[in-house]
Amino acid sequence: MEKSQEGLTVKKDENFSEWYTQLIEKAELADLRYNIKGFLVFQPWSVLSMEKMFSSMEKVLQRKGHSPYFFPTLIPENNLKKESSHIKGFTPEVFWVTQGGDNVLEEKFALRPTSETAFYQMFSLWIRSYKELPFKTYQRANIFRHETKATRPFLRSREFHWIETHCAHASKEDAMSQVKEDMETTKEVLHDIFGLPFMFFERPSWDKFPGAEKTFAADVLNPDGKVVQQPSTHILKQEFPRAFGVTFKDKNGEEKTVWTTCYGPAISRIFASVMIVHGDDKGLKFPWDIAPLQVVIIPINEEVKQKAEKLKLEIEKFASVKIDYSDKRPGEKFNYWEMKGVPIRIDLGLKDLENKKITVFRRDLDKKEVVSESELIKKIKKISEEITKNLTKKADNLFNNKIKDAKNIKEIKKIIEEGGIARCNFCSVEKEGEKCAEIIEKETGAQVRGTKLDEKQKPNGKCAICGKPAHNIVYIAKSY
Amino acid sequence: MEKSQEGLTVKKDENFSEWYTQLIEKAELADLRYNIKGFLVFQPWSVLSMEKMFSSMEKVLQRKGHSPYFFPTLIPENNLKKESSHIKGFTPEVFWVTQGGDNVLEEKFALRPTSETAFYQMFSLWIRSYKELPFKTYQRANIFRHETKATRPFLRSREFHWIETHCAHASKEDAMSQVKEDMETTKEVLHDIFGLPFMFFERPSWDKFPGAEKTFAADVLNPDGKVVQQPSTHILKQEFPRAFGVTFKDKNGEEKTVWTTCYGPAISRIFASVMIVHGDDKGLKFPWDIAPLQVVIIPINEEVKQKAEKLKLEIEKFASVKIDYSDKRPGEKFNYWEMKGVPIRIDLGLKDLENKKITVFRRDLDKKEVVSESELIKKIKKISEEITKNLTKKADNLFNNKIKDAKNIKEIKKIIEEGGIARCNFCSVEKEGEKCAEIIEKETGAQVRGTKLDEKQKPNGKCAICGKPAHNIVYIAKSY
Repeated sequence: MEKSQEGLTVKKDENFSEWYTQLIEKAELADLRYNIKGFLVFQPWSVLSMEKMFSSMEKVLQRKGHSPYFFPTLIPENNLKKESSHIKGFTPEVFWVTQGGDNVLEEKFALRPTSETAFYQMFSLWIRSYKELPFKTYQRANIFRHETKATRPFLRSREFHWIETHCAHASKEDAMSQVKEDMETTKEVLHDIFGLPFMFFERPSWDKFPGAEKTFAADVLNPDGKVVQQPSTHILKQEFPRAFGVTFKDKNGEEKTVWTTCYGPAISRIFASVMIVHGDDKGLKFPWDIAPLQVVIIPINEEVKQKAEKLKLEIEKFASVKIDYSDKRPGEKFNYWEMKGVPIRIDLGLKDLENKKITVFRRDLDKKEVVSESELIKKIKKISEEITKNLTKKADNLFNNKIKDAKNIKEIKKIIEEGGIARCNFCSVEKEGEKCAEIIEKETGAQVRGTKLDEKQKPNGKCAICGKPAHNIVYIAKSY
Repeated sequence: MEKSQEGLTVKKDENFSEWYTQLIEKAELADLRYNIKGFLVFQPWSVLSMEKMFSSMEKVLQRKGHSPYFFPTLIPENNLKKESSHIKGFTPEVFWVTQGGDNVLEEKFALRPTSETAFYQMFSLWIRSYKELPFKTYQRANIFRHETKATRPFLRSREFHWIETHCAHASKEDAMSQVKEDMETTKEVLHDIFGLPFMFFERPSWDKFPGAEKTFAADVLNPDGKVVQQPSTHILKQEFPRAFGVTFKDKNGEEKTVWTTCYGPAISRIFASVMIVHGDDKGLKFPWDIAPLQVVIIPINEEVKQKAEKLKLEIEKFASVKIDYSDKRPGEKFNYWEMKGVPIRIDLGLKDLENKKITVFRRDLDKKEVVSESELIKKIKKISEEITKNLTKKADNLFNNKIKDAKNIKEIKKIIEEGGIARCNFCSVEKEGEKCAEIIEKETGAQVRGTKLDEKQKPNGKCAICGKPAHNIVYIAKSY
C-alpha cells in the first residue's frame, strides 16, 4: 500500500519502459517476485478486469456458434510429434512433465503450448459428416511456453491466460470465411468493448505459425511506436488434420479431410494493451465494461457517510461501486483511484451537499463536473455510455496518425524512427520477397507485418526496396 | 449424436454405477477417450453448467471480501518441502515438470496439487499489520493429482477444476469464524442454488488434510448410500505459515504468526453431485440457475416456425432458449431434451395454436401443462422460480430420511447396509477413539465422517462401540 501512494514518477512518453514497470507495481496488477523465472502472480486489480474480458469474448464466441470445452492441460509427446513443423516450432518452448509421484512416466507429457494436437485427436472421434461442419469450439485455458526470449509481464510470460478456438471446415473457402469472422470478432470485442485500435494483417509467408498455411494477426500499436501482436488466427495446413485422421463424408458420400482454423486471443496480453493504449502519466484508464470497479465514492468528511451509503445502494443497481473509507487524505485518495483507472469518482463534501450539489470526476477526460444532486444518477449513466467511446476515439486518432506512406527505404527509416508505421508498395509477401524484408529489418530494425486483410486498395507501382513490380501493399513496424 | 438418442438403458436405483457412466456418455458431458489415463475432455453441456457454478460461487466469495488472483500452475519443489506433513501427504500424488525445451531444469516444479505453498510465500511479502487481516483471497484454477486410487469422471480425475480460497487471520478464533463463514457459503451456493443437501462435519483427528490442525468438510449423499466429500475447509497448523514467515505486527507492535484457513469447492466434482442427486432414469435435471440451457422450444410442424421465433425473442429477455429444428421426430426430441435436463420445454403444435393454447413441460415434476397463449410468459417465469425449490425439497427429504440413530455396531451395520447414514454416541474423535472407528470400518465398510459443526445436541450416554462415556455424536457412512 505505501508504495502505491507515491504515484508514478516517470512520464509515459519519456520513459515508456519504466512507466510500464511502475504501473504494474504501483497499481498492484501483478507481483513479479514469484520464485520461478517468467511466472508471475496476477493480482485482483488485473484479474477482475481480465475476468470481464474473458466474459466479453466468450459471449461473442458463443453467439457465433462456438461451444466451450475444458481440455486436459497435458498433451502426450506423441500427439505433438504428429505434425512435423508444429513440433519443430514448439519443441524449444515446451515444459515437459516426466514424473508422477516417485515414478518416471512411460511417456513425457507437454504442458500445452497450444492445443491443436489435443483437439484434433478428439475431432477425429466426433466429426463424421458434412452436416456437422463447421465444427466450432473454444476453451478458456492457461498455456505454457518456456520462452527463450526475455519475458515481460502480461506481454510475454511463461504461463498465460487465453482463449483458443479450434474449428473444422468442409473447404478452404469455409476456413477463409472463419478467418474473416475472427477479424470481425476482434473488432467487436477488442475495438468496440476494450477500445483498442488494430490492423488485421495476413502475415508474409516467412512469418507463419508452425504448421500454418496462412497466418493472420491483429497488431496493436504502443506509444513507443512498436506493435504488439494480439489475437492471431490461422488456416492450418491440411497435413495437420490429416495426421490425426480428421475426415468427414461429403454430400456425395466421399471421405474428405477437413480444413482447420484456430484463433487465440491472449487475454493477459490484451490486458497489457489496455494498460498501454489508454493509460497516461497518472496511471490506468479503464473502458467502462472492463473496469475492475466502475465508480468510487470519496466521502470528504465524516458527516456525509450516510449520504454515501445511500448513493452506493442506488448506483450498485447498474454499476460496481465502492466507498473509500480508508484513513488517507482526500488528495491521496484522488491520486490513488486515478492511478487505478476507475472511470467515475464522486467526491462527497458537506458544503456541496448543503447546496444540493455533487462533484463528479471522470477519468476519460480527467475532468470534474458539478451536478445537482437530483441529476446525479442520470449523469453517471450518461458518462458511463460515453467513456469507452471517448477512449476509443482518442486511441483511433493516435493510431491513424502513425500510419504514413513511404516510397523508399529512406522514407521507411524516417517513419520508423519517428515511432510510426510505414505503408509502402512491396514486391511480394511470398518467398521471393523475403530478401527485401531482410533489407528493411537490417536498415530500420522493423519488420514487414503483412498485408491488410480488409484493404481494398491495390498496389500500383514498384517495390520500395527492389524496384520490381509490386504485388502487395505492406505495413512495416517495429514489434515486441 | 446417434448414441444419445438411445436414452439410458438402466435404472438409477438398480445399477447406479452403470447409470452414471451411461449418463456421462449419452448426455455428452465428458469424453473419456483422451489418451492420458485419468484425464478427460469436458464437453459443452457440462462446461456451460460449470461456468455458471463458478460464477455463482465467485459472486458469493467476492461479496464476502475474497479477492481473486491467478497464481502460477507450477510450484517449486522447495516450496512444497517447507511443511513436512504437507509434502508427505502430497508427494505420492504430484506430477513433476523436470524439463524446459531440451534442458533439464535445475529445480523440479510441481503441477499444483493445491496452492497453499504458492500463496503463503506471497502472503509473507504482502501482509505486514493486523490492519490487513483477515486477508482473504481465492483463485479459480485447475489442479493436478497423480491419483493412486481408481479415477471416476467428475468425481476423481487427475486434473480437476476448482476454486481455492486462502485466508490469513490474526487468531485461531478468527480462523474458526472463517470456517463457519465457509459453511454458510456452502449452504448459500451448494444447497440454495445447486439444490444439494449436505452435512458439514468436523473430521475426526485421524482424518485430516496434510498439514491441517482441523479439517471440516461437506458430505453429500449419493442414492447408493455413499457420501461424496464436497468443499472441505481447513485450519492449518501454524507450522505452515511459520515455515513461510507469514507474520504481522499486532496492535501492540508485537510480531506474530498468522493463522491460515483454506476452502476448496471442486466445481467439476460438485457437478457430479448435481447429476447424481437430481438425475433420474430419464437423465439429468438441472436447477434453474445452472442449467446449460433453460428453455427449449420444439416446433411440432413446419407451420409454427414463425411463432417459435417470436416466442424465442420474448423468452431470451430473461432466460436462455433454443429452438430444436433438427430432423428428429418430436418424440425423439422430447426424450433427448429430457435426458439433457433442460428445465422447461415448450411443445408448439398447430392445433394447439389454433386454440390459443401452448403445452409446457417441466422437468422438475415431469409434468405437462396446457396454458393459454397469453399466459405463457408469466407461466414460464413462475415455473423458473419453482424449479430449484422443488428439486431441493425432494433432495432434502431423501437425505434426511437416510439419517438414522444407532445404539450399537449391529444397528450401525443394518443402517449402512440399507444405504443410510448412522448417527450414534461415540467415545471420542480425538486419537483415543480411532480404535472404535477401525472396528466400525472393519465391520461395516463405513467410516466415521465426524461431528456436525452446527449441531447443538450433546451426547448423553455411552459409545456405541466400546461403551466408554461418549464425548461426541458422530455420523457414519460409506464414502467414495
